[in-house]
Amino acid sequence: MNNNRIYNFNAGPAALPLSVLEEIRDSFINYNGSGMSVTELSHRSKWFDDIINDAVDRTKRLLKLDDRYSVIFVQGGASMQFCMIPMNCIGEGETADYVNTGTWSTKAIKEAEVLGKKIEVAASSEDRNFAYIPKNISFNSSSAYVHITSNNTIKGTQWQDFPDTGGVPIVADMSSDIMSRPLDIDKFGLIYAGAQKNIGPAGVCMVIIREDMLKVSNDNFPTMLKYSTYVSKNSMYNTPPCFAVYTIQLVLKWLEETVGGLEKMAHINQEKGEILYGILDSGGFYKGTADTDSRSLMNVTFRLPDENLEKMFIQEALDNGFGGLKGHRSVGGCRASIYNAATIEAVKALGDFMAEFERKHG
Amino acid sequence: MNNNRIYNFNAGPAALPLSVLEEIRDSFINYNGSGMSVTELSHRSKWFDDIINDAVDRTKRLLKLDDRYSVIFVQGGASMQFCMIPMNCIGEGETADYVNTGTWSTKAIKEAEVLGKKIEVAASSEDRNFAYIPKNISFNSSSAYVHITSNNTIKGTQWQDFPDTGGVPIVADMSSDIMSRPLDIDKFGLIYAGAQKNIGPAGVCMVIIREDMLKVSNDNFPTMLKYSTYVSKNSMYNTPPCFAVYTIQLVLKWLEETVGGLEKMAHINQEKGEILYGILDSGGFYKGTADTDSRSLMNVTFRLPDENLEKMFIQEALDNGFGGLKGHRSVGGCRASIYNAATIEAVKALGDFMAEFERKHG
Repeated sequence: MNNNRIYNFNAGPAALPLSVLEEIRDSFINYNGSGMSVTELSHRSKWFDDIINDAVDRTKRLLKLDDRYSVIFVQGGASMQFCMIPMNCIGEGETADYVNTGTWSTKAIKEAEVLGKKIEVAASSEDRNFAYIPKNISFNSSSAYVHITSNNTIKGTQWQDFPDTGGVPIVADMSSDIMSRPLDIDKFGLIYAGAQKNIGPAGVCMVIIREDMLKVSNDNFPTMLKYSTYVSKNSMYNTPPCFAVYTIQLVLKWLEETVGGLEKMAHINQEKGEILYGILDSGGFYKGTADTDSRSLMNVTFRLPDENLEKMFIQEALDNGFGGLKGHRSVGGCRASIYNAATIEAVKALGDFMAEFERKHG
Repeated sequence: MNNNRIYNFNAGPAALPLSVLEEIRDSFINYNGSGMSVTELSHRSKWFDDIINDAVDRTKRLLKLDDRYSVIFVQGGASMQFCMIPMNCIGEGETADYVNTGTWSTKAIKEAEVLGKKIEVAASSEDRNFAYIPKNISFNSSSAYVHITSNNTIKGTQWQDFPDTGGVPIVADMSSDIMSRPLDIDKFGLIYAGAQKNIGPAGVCMVIIREDMLKVSNDNFPTMLKYSTYVSKNSMYNTPPCFAVYTIQLVLKWLEETVGGLEKMAHINQEKGEILYGILDSGGFYKGTADTDSRSLMNVTFRLPDENLEKMFIQEALDNGFGGLKGHRSVGGCRASIYNAATIEAVKALGDFMAEFERKHG
């Protein structure tokens, strides 16, 4: 690649579009004629207003959000949302349904319970080590919401279709697949996404919230933990994470103007997935870890015949300019994270490398 | 200035050292031979470990912290600390003393009370519109801590000496003057600082916490709101705001290696303050708003004879390349924020401009 850059398959923080990085670099000392770095701009300035408003507007256009939805930027990552969601969205006497599809769902469940809010685990794929997405789930029709993790980075699974909840709003942790495909937005009451996989750098969580989810009166808890604080102040009750919001703005601009929207992005992601899953399915050397009908187009997880070969594979890949292929430390194995910014060129090069490695060692 | 950059007197986000900005720009596409942008590095990588550990080590050296103190990086700004501090540090049956010196202290007090924790306002300068820092305060010797705002950006006041609390640990919001001078660290149980004024970009809050402040058992509240989560995981329980931590690391390196430490920084800040306060005291045209013995070396707040002249001053300054001189929207008037990264050259140029403006309009 250019500039001695590697092919970056990190699970997050992850690759960003090179054109976005170049734009940040080229204007870093003097942003848009301001005479300041983007990191030095007042968040109360016209320049930053334009940045955050453009990021919100592009999100609304890309996901086809109507006026019921607000787009806000919150700090603390998805992990902070694990507590903010039940605090803000489970009302007096209500419960919520959670589906457990892996590490992140498990944490979301634990944090919801910690607050004394009542939730139910409506389904779980723990019985087979989270290798699949549960189907035909019965939800409680009086739940405040149904919480799912739309893509599971560690186990390499993804909700290919969203569940029928009988009209109960879905709350989805989309940290690892937001903006990777179009959504039927009406199903969702709240979507949240730590930016550092598909839409930006670490340090900001995008939250998309529908007005009916703000029903809980919460005068008795801290200002910074209330969604209404962010919604009413356009995410600027206090100083927002300006640089992270700016980077998101540029990534969304790239998605709209260079890629051409989420239908096109989904098509490219499909193509990338087919390249790698094609190799996993082509023989017995590489073995995918997720059930076929639950496979993720964002994180392709696989094993080699033994751990020594896996170590060799990861090292040889690194020597050939492919980074981030080690599986999550909790499960081992290999993982190629191919978020939006992973190019077809990068994925094809990885496919070629995998085929060659199999030829030599298979 | 170079690169058509302005003289930046923003109150925050604020000026950063030009050499730091240039280093970020020059390595932005390929950080330290990694083949990735610093925004694309895994936070579990050796590269990022080195960044965060270096930022912690430099903080410990600059402030002469002993082993009782941990340095952690938390998201949500100082505003999130307003609730985390009482949650974590006021034990069963305890109270804490707060000193009210302006907008930020007032918010800290409000957020502490919201949680049902008990606090006392030990002193306030509200009687004279926060134009001074209270003196000879009686503190409750059994308080969990005494909370102060060390520098008040809006009113332009600063604790020139820290209060005698009779051994009760001071908890200080140092968002706007951290690293501007050496500290007698033994007095402090906890120091917190939103980075975006003196040490970095928006999106991260540095928290320095002494082990005895972690005494409150808090199994019953969210993981992300417990200091112990950050202390035990070196701020990496979840993905930290990597770019902001990286920028802090470079600013601290600049402080140690280019400036030469906090004694030298304090000397430079003293010199900068004398230039501007000298002008405020030289005649009746400009009038400082803070009591002389409470003046801030970070935010020099002043009025002109009337609001029309103030508008003209701010506009003419802007036309001459001096940005950020408008006072906070809640008080009006003018303000020059001269944090660490504001150079003597910039302050001298502003002084010359102010003298010339007075000559023309005084």
